[in-house]
Amino acid sequence: MRIYDIIQKKRDNKQLNMQEIEFVINGYVNGEIEDYQMSAFLMAVYFNGMQDEECANFTKCMLNSGETMDLSEIKGIKVDKHSTGGVGDKTTLIVAPIVAACGAKVAKMSGRGLGHTGGTIDKLESISGVKLDLPKERFFEIVNKVGCCIVSQSGNLVPADKKIYALRDVTATVESMPLIASSIMSKKLASGADCILLDVKVGSGAFMKTKEDAINLSKIMVNIGEHCGKKVVAIITDMNEPLGNAIGNAIEVWEVCKVLKGEGPKDLNDICICLASNMLYLANKGTMEECEKMVLDSIKSGKALEKFKEMISEQGGNLEKFIDADNYNIDFKVKHEVFLGKNGYVSSMDTEKIGKAAMVLGAGRKKKEDKIDYSAGIMLNKKIGDKISGNECFAELYSSSLEKCLEAENILKEAVITSQNSVQEKKLIKAKVVADEVEIF
Amino acid sequence: MRIYDIIQKKRDNKQLNMQEIEFVINGYVNGEIEDYQMSAFLMAVYFNGMQDEECANFTKCMLNSGETMDLSEIKGIKVDKHSTGGVGDKTTLIVAPIVAACGAKVAKMSGRGLGHTGGTIDKLESISGVKLDLPKERFFEIVNKVGCCIVSQSGNLVPADKKIYALRDVTATVESMPLIASSIMSKKLASGADCILLDVKVGSGAFMKTKEDAINLSKIMVNIGEHCGKKVVAIITDMNEPLGNAIGNAIEVWEVCKVLKGEGPKDLNDICICLASNMLYLANKGTMEECEKMVLDSIKSGKALEKFKEMISEQGGNLEKFIDADNYNIDFKVKHEVFLGKNGYVSSMDTEKIGKAAMVLGAGRKKKEDKIDYSAGIMLNKKIGDKISGNECFAELYSSSLEKCLEAENILKEAVITSQNSVQEKKLIKAKVVADEVEIF
Repeated sequence: MRIYDIIQKKRDNKQLNMQEIEFVINGYVNGEIEDYQMSAFLMAVYFNGMQDEECANFTKCMLNSGETMDLSEIKGIKVDKHSTGGVGDKTTLIVAPIVAACGAKVAKMSGRGLGHTGGTIDKLESISGVKLDLPKERFFEIVNKVGCCIVSQSGNLVPADKKIYALRDVTATVESMPLIASSIMSKKLASGADCILLDVKVGSGAFMKTKEDAINLSKIMVNIGEHCGKKVVAIITDMNEPLGNAIGNAIEVWEVCKVLKGEGPKDLNDICICLASNMLYLANKGTMEECEKMVLDSIKSGKALEKFKEMISEQGGNLEKFIDADNYNIDFKVKHEVFLGKNGYVSSMDTEKIGKAAMVLGAGRKKKEDKIDYSAGIMLNKKIGDKISGNECFAELYSSSLEKCLEAENILKEAVITSQNSVQEKKLIKAKVVADEVEIF
Repeated sequence: MRIYDIIQKKRDNKQLNMQEIEFVINGYVNGEIEDYQMSAFLMAVYFNGMQDEECANFTKCMLNSGETMDLSEIKGIKVDKHSTGGVGDKTTLIVAPIVAACGAKVAKMSGRGLGHTGGTIDKLESISGVKLDLPKERFFEIVNKVGCCIVSQSGNLVPADKKIYALRDVTATVESMPLIASSIMSKKLASGADCILLDVKVGSGAFMKTKEDAINLSKIMVNIGEHCGKKVVAIITDMNEPLGNAIGNAIEVWEVCKVLKGEGPKDLNDICICLASNMLYLANKGTMEECEKMVLDSIKSGKALEKFKEMISEQGGNLEKFIDADNYNIDFKVKHEVFLGKNGYVSSMDTEKIGKAAMVLGAGRKKKEDKIDYSAGIMLNKKIGDKISGNECFAELYSSSLEKCLEAENILKEAVITSQNSVQEKKLIKAKVVADEVEIF
């Protein structure tokens, strides 16, 4: 077998078989296939895509390139979730304790943020004392005891994806549906859960800009799951504005506690109930209606918040100051209020720009090496559809200096558009993709 | 400017401007752009092609990456020719002396053969004593004195093409019309002639398999010439069987002399008259009719043969044994006759396979490092359309061992198909492409 022939085959839009895909991925990981041949191959995939079976095989080979987690020491059904990334997306921290409180297990490995999107691990690190690089035994112990635990990705999971993604990132081959799908799914499948809920974001702050793209990506990912014998469901959710009101790290943990106390913003609350219910349904905990009731009860009863406290406590941290504070007031140096200076309705937000404003404040990283200011962030007082007057505070910025606040303010003001007319509310949960079925809401 | 953005732009099918093209080519030659980014770019070009102006600019930048020949010390109009390569194609050796005999100048740089096609330089090397790596001054002196001279490509002409072609060769991006056209034209333009005749081969022994592809490639190349201010005409000619009867090196020089003596096979003779007439027309030597008459006269009068002898003599060689021999009889060790063992008509030939049979005999190179047996080759006694009986010799093979002859015989027999019905003659000269005009014959 020669890589030349495989590039040519893909270039000529023919389907690759398992042996050929193995040859490409193993050869690339071993260094037998050169970067310049792999990048030509990836560009051919960009143009010609992959068939369902081909893409599933590609994912399997990526998965098999490294270690996979064996969660069999954890009792019960393990359910995982993955979000394709957005601004203000703190749902993992909310749904993990809810699902645990309702009797399924969440043994979750999460990543750090880069660019305009935040990472779950960064958010957790804003809680002092929390340990995220736990050894496997301790990780399993906490999941068995509490029902959930979140640790940072470790070990040699899917080395093929690391190497291929780095190459895609410099050769304009990131934006390929089968490559995106196989990258996400190989990592999720390597994490060893029994079933996976995917939260595919769509909108100005998401990688997928249209509902059609989000549905296509979801179909490919659900199909991959099926080929690999795992139950996978995708929920397509709105990312045309930040999720909730808080964007940052400590500030998002504070908002997580608000939701778990039953006092969270409606959009974030609704999405978390939807995600958690679907996770429980995947874990065979009942009908969709029963699962949703369990989720609501877990919040109402305080059990979900209790689970979150317990998990953080087992991981070495303390949530008290987050739970006790009615308003965000955690360690920042400078607070700066932003006024839009216009009367009207908030009609749209360039969510990616808002993410960048948070990055400028210190809440995110431009490059991997950058340090995060955990207390930095944005609190939005208004969301799309809200009426606002020129002398009302649109948002509060938190940072280490006024200079950063002023720079972020400019970005934020550019990102927000108001109109004189009231704005129709957009659907938050847009579609659900299950095996061969797409349900559009 | 960033290479990532340029790859993305090409990937998204947008036209690149001159600055962007310069950035790509200069950056790649300088080593600032990595192979893996260039190969992704080339694959994007494979899929999206290039606009006329874009392709001309791409060629200009390739051309400017190295030295260009300044032929101004040669008096008169310098006319060059290029063939896209075939089996038994010895036309350069015939048309150069004809054109010189008719008063235009041919200062030609040629290459070596690889795979199933032969190279003009290899053919000339079969004449003992011939020097092909002449210094520029001596090269110009011979052209000024004789009217023609053929030397091997030297110097740092189009280093961008060398580097880009080597990458295309291992990344399945060779078969791209604009990349093929810019590769050929950059080298031709760097050679410094005033006008260029392109012989674009089409058929089973050529790179272009269909007339449509050959016409498309020709249009792009003629357009590039126009953008660069050079007169360029393309003739599309048949390569569904070897050109002439002789395939090899010494054996082809022998056949060249036959044509120049007025005793050549009809197909080879006709093509050479067409190419030489067009070269003279490009060099403003008269109307097409006048040019053709000059060509015929130059053969009839023996002036063309005289020019060839003169050129070879100035380059240190002697043609006598080639001119004197009525039949090919030059230094080979083994001669082997091939019989098809069937009665009928020769209906088609897999010309690429015949080229490979010649390679097996020792007449060509599989790898660049391989040594050539100059006396090895094939003499076809029958061509497409000819009647043949089972006890008639189809071809004679010449080599250093019977073993090689037997291997080549098997390949040759596989390559030739006979039929019971007589076969319609195919047109040898299929089309002519001049600026915006395509004339189909």
